[in-house]
Amino acid sequence: MSIADRVAWIAVDWGTSNLRIWAMDAGNDLLAERSSDQGMGGLDPSQFEGVLLGLIEEFLLRDRVTPVICCGMVGAKQGWVEADYVAVPNAPPNGDAATRAKSDDLRIDVWILPGMKQVAQPDVMRGEETQVAGFLRDQPEFDGVLVMPGTHSKWAHISAGEIVSFQTFMTGEMYALLARQSVLKHSVAVTGWDDAAFETAIGEAISRPESVAAKLFGLRAASLVSEQSNEAARARLSGLLIGLELAATRPYWLGQNLAIVGAPEVGAVYAKALALQGLQAQVIDAQPMTRAGLIAAYETMKGTQ
Amino acid sequence: MSIADRVAWIAVDWGTSNLRIWAMDAGNDLLAERSSDQGMGGLDPSQFEGVLLGLIEEFLLRDRVTPVICCGMVGAKQGWVEADYVAVPNAPPNGDAATRAKSDDLRIDVWILPGMKQVAQPDVMRGEETQVAGFLRDQPEFDGVLVMPGTHSKWAHISAGEIVSFQTFMTGEMYALLARQSVLKHSVAVTGWDDAAFETAIGEAISRPESVAAKLFGLRAASLVSEQSNEAARARLSGLLIGLELAATRPYWLGQNLAIVGAPEVGAVYAKALALQGLQAQVIDAQPMTRAGLIAAYETMKGTQ
Repeated sequence: MSIADRVAWIAVDWGTSNLRIWAMDAGNDLLAERSSDQGMGGLDPSQFEGVLLGLIEEFLLRDRVTPVICCGMVGAKQGWVEADYVAVPNAPPNGDAATRAKSDDLRIDVWILPGMKQVAQPDVMRGEETQVAGFLRDQPEFDGVLVMPGTHSKWAHISAGEIVSFQTFMTGEMYALLARQSVLKHSVAVTGWDDAAFETAIGEAISRPESVAAKLFGLRAASLVSEQSNEAARARLSGLLIGLELAATRPYWLGQNLAIVGAPEVGAVYAKALALQGLQAQVIDAQPMTRAGLIAAYETMKGTQ
Repeated sequence: MSIADRVAWIAVDWGTSNLRIWAMDAGNDLLAERSSDQGMGGLDPSQFEGVLLGLIEEFLLRDRVTPVICCGMVGAKQGWVEADYVAVPNAPPNGDAATRAKSDDLRIDVWILPGMKQVAQPDVMRGEETQVAGFLRDQPEFDGVLVMPGTHSKWAHISAGEIVSFQTFMTGEMYALLARQSVLKHSVAVTGWDDAAFETAIGEAISRPESVAAKLFGLRAASLVSEQSNEAARARLSGLLIGLELAATRPYWLGQNLAIVGAPEVGAVYAKALALQGLQAQVIDAQPMTRAGLIAAYETMKGTQ
C-alpha cells in the first residue's frame, strides 16, 4: 500500500512567508510532512493551486477527492480566497466556518478557515486561532492567557472555550527590522547571546517603558564608545523589545494562568522573560497545536458533509 | 571676476545619505550651494576626494589652496578619515579640533570636525554638534534644550556655551522602517495628514508609553476591520512614535527653555507635538545653523594657521 492509499486528508498551515503541509490518515495520525518558503506573501491568487499540487502530488489518488483544510494568511484578501473574520468573543472557528477555495484539479477539495477579528480595539489574527483550537482540544478547561510569540506575537485571553479578547505586538518584525536594516545592524550580532544583558534590558523596559525609545540608539553608541559586544547587543535588543511587550501586557499576565505556544526557541526566550517577573508558564510547541486545530476543524467538517 | 576668484573657503555637511556644499567668500557670505546624494554610507574611503572634487571643481583655482571644512559622518570610522569624538560636557568642537584628511589634489586642504560622545549613558553625534555651534553663534547665552529632529533625533541640554548631555532617538528611522518595510506599509499613506489622529496619538503615547507597542499593529488592523484611512494612519504612526519620544524626554522639556533646530517640515511637526503639552518652542531651520557652525570652525582655524 502506497502512502497515497493511506492518506485521508491534508492539513495546511499557509502563512505569509512559509507553508507547511501534513498528510493525515483516517485516524488523524501524521503520515508525512512537507514545507516550503512559498508563503502567500509572494503569491498571486492564481498560483496557490499549483504550489499546493506541487507539494502534495504524491499524496493524491486519481479516483479519490482528498479534502485539504488550510489556515493562515492564505485566507486573507490577497490570498487564495478571502475567508472572512469571525469576531471575538467567540470559540476559534471550526470546520463549519470554512470557505471553499476554487480549484481546477478534481482530486482535491480545498477549504480555508477564517481568521478572527476584534472591533473595539481593532486587531486581527489568521492562523493563531487554529493554534488556540488545537490547544483547547488538549486542555478544554483552560482559563487564562495564551501567549503566541512570533513575527506578530499575540496575547489571547481564553475563557470557557472562547477567545475573549486579544492583542498583537509587532515585536518579532520590529526586532528583524532593527537588527538587520537599521543603523543597529552594525552593532547587533546574528547569533550569540548574553543572559545578563537580556535580564537587565527586560527589567529596564518593564520599569521604564518610555525609556526603550532612547535605549535603542544606545545599542549603537555603546559599541562605539564602550566595550559592549555585538552578542550582548543582540540579547539586549531582544530584552528591550520583549520587555516593552511585557510592560504593555501586564494586565494580561499579572496573576493570570499563562501558557506560551510558539516555536521552541522563541518560546523559551519569552518564558525566561516572564520568569524574571516571577511567572511560570508552560511552553508548548506551536506546530503540533496548529495541526491539532486543523484536526478539530476536519472533524467538524466531516459531520456536515 | 569668476565665482572661483571670490571663493575663500568651502563648507561641507557630509552625512550618511546626503552631502551639501557651500562656497563661501572671505566675509563668510554664501556664494553658491551644491548638493548630492553621495552620502558617506555608500562610499569607500578612497572615493571621498573624487566625489568632492566633482562638486567643487568650478570653485577652485589652480594657484590657490582652498580650505574645505567638513562636518558629519564623513568623520566616522568608515568615512574619509576618522575624526575622534569629543566627550561631553564640552563646547561643540571648533576648528582647533579638526582632523586633516589626506587628499592628492594640491588645490584643496580638507579638514573634518569631530563628533561628540557621551560615555556614562552611551551616545554619539556627528553633525548635530555643528548645528549647536551655529545656534550658539546666534544665541550665545541660550540656556535650555535643543531638539534636533531627524532620522536620529537628538535632544541636547545646553548651558554656558556647552553641550552638557544629550540623548538620541531613532524615531525617524523607525518611522521609515515601519511605514515602508513592515506590514504597516499596506495601511500607511506616503502623503496626507490628519491633525486629529496625530493629536490623539501624541496624547496616548505620552500618557501610556507602554501601549505604543500594541497600538502599532492596531494601525494595520484598523484599516482591515474599521474605516481608518491611510492618511489618518500616517499621522497616527507619526504621533505614536513622536509621543513615545516625548514620554522619554519629559525631563528634558518639562519647564525648560526649548528650541527646535531641524528641517522646516519635521520641525513644525515636533513644535505641534510640544504645543499639545503646552510648550512653545522656536523652530529654526537646520541648514543655516550647520553653515554657521562651519563658519565658527573656519574662524577658529584661521587663527591657528
